[in-house]
Amino acid sequence: MNIRSATERDWPQVWEFLRVIAKEGETYCWDRDLAEEKAYAWWWRPLPVRTVVAVDGDTVLGTAVSYPNQSGPGAHVASASFLVDPAFRGVGRALGNHVVDQARADGFRAMQFNAVVETNTRAVALWESLGFRVLGTVPEAFHSPAAGYVGLHIMYRSLL
Amino acid sequence: MNIRSATERDWPQVWEFLRVIAKEGETYCWDRDLAEEKAYAWWWRPLPVRTVVAVDGDTVLGTAVSYPNQSGPGAHVASASFLVDPAFRGVGRALGNHVVDQARADGFRAMQFNAVVETNTRAVALWESLGFRVLGTVPEAFHSPAAGYVGLHIMYRSLL
Repeated sequence: MNIRSATERDWPQVWEFLRVIAKEGETYCWDRDLAEEKAYAWWWRPLPVRTVVAVDGDTVLGTAVSYPNQSGPGAHVASASFLVDPAFRGVGRALGNHVVDQARADGFRAMQFNAVVETNTRAVALWESLGFRVLGTVPEAFHSPAAGYVGLHIMYRSLL
Repeated sequence: MNIRSATERDWPQVWEFLRVIAKEGETYCWDRDLAEEKAYAWWWRPLPVRTVVAVDGDTVLGTAVSYPNQSGPGAHVASASFLVDPAFRGVGRALGNHVVDQARADGFRAMQFNAVVETNTRAVALWESLGFRVLGTVPEAFHSPAAGYVGLHIMYRSLL
């Protein structure tokens, strides 16, 4: 597995799993019938947004998008979003490490996730194992098809 | 003082104080030399974003912009931003009450602020007096010209 900058040619493969993740509605604050144009406009943006893919040969296993969480006086804290083809879940850790290292190299002082669904226990455990902690949880801020109203964690780690 | 839906004709007066607040750099995660077109595009958006102004006759004293904090499974939690002409600080409470009531009427279940600067003690006290509480604080997430790196509070209240 290799992690590299994404190109527009990776999009069709990313869309195949992104659409499934959106449709499931269990992990992301996206419309479940998210339009492809809207998803693409989110995924593929100019710097300072960075889009990477994890690939095995020609197969895209996952993708990550990282960006300043705020502008101006808040632009030194990064955020990021991760999507992994459900068939290749182990890819998240490699993408997480890559994105954390890149953000530190880019001069970000910390990384913050704004909306980690509390029932997505695999993701919460992964981020905790990578040094993130839950700063707070917004009660009932996510409406899960399976679990009803559940909390959204704000997670954080310093990069200094 | 009256609070009403904004119109595009209110913009020149809003821009007069918005530019000052951005330039000060103490309360908002905006570029300090924020371009007017960018500010306008943020302030004036179609529904579900609501833009209101507090006016005294023809004078705009303050403005608030409210919107879903997330999309899809997170779209039932509102967020909002408030800007008051520094000459008329008392307007914030009236705008806050208005926006909370409107969000409840629109069916939002809660309201969340993502980035309240912890040194902006007047704002923190105002939101606490309106029923918000600090869910968590992102350490050193805001670079204040006066105070250096300070925290950003995530604040929340239920609307049920």
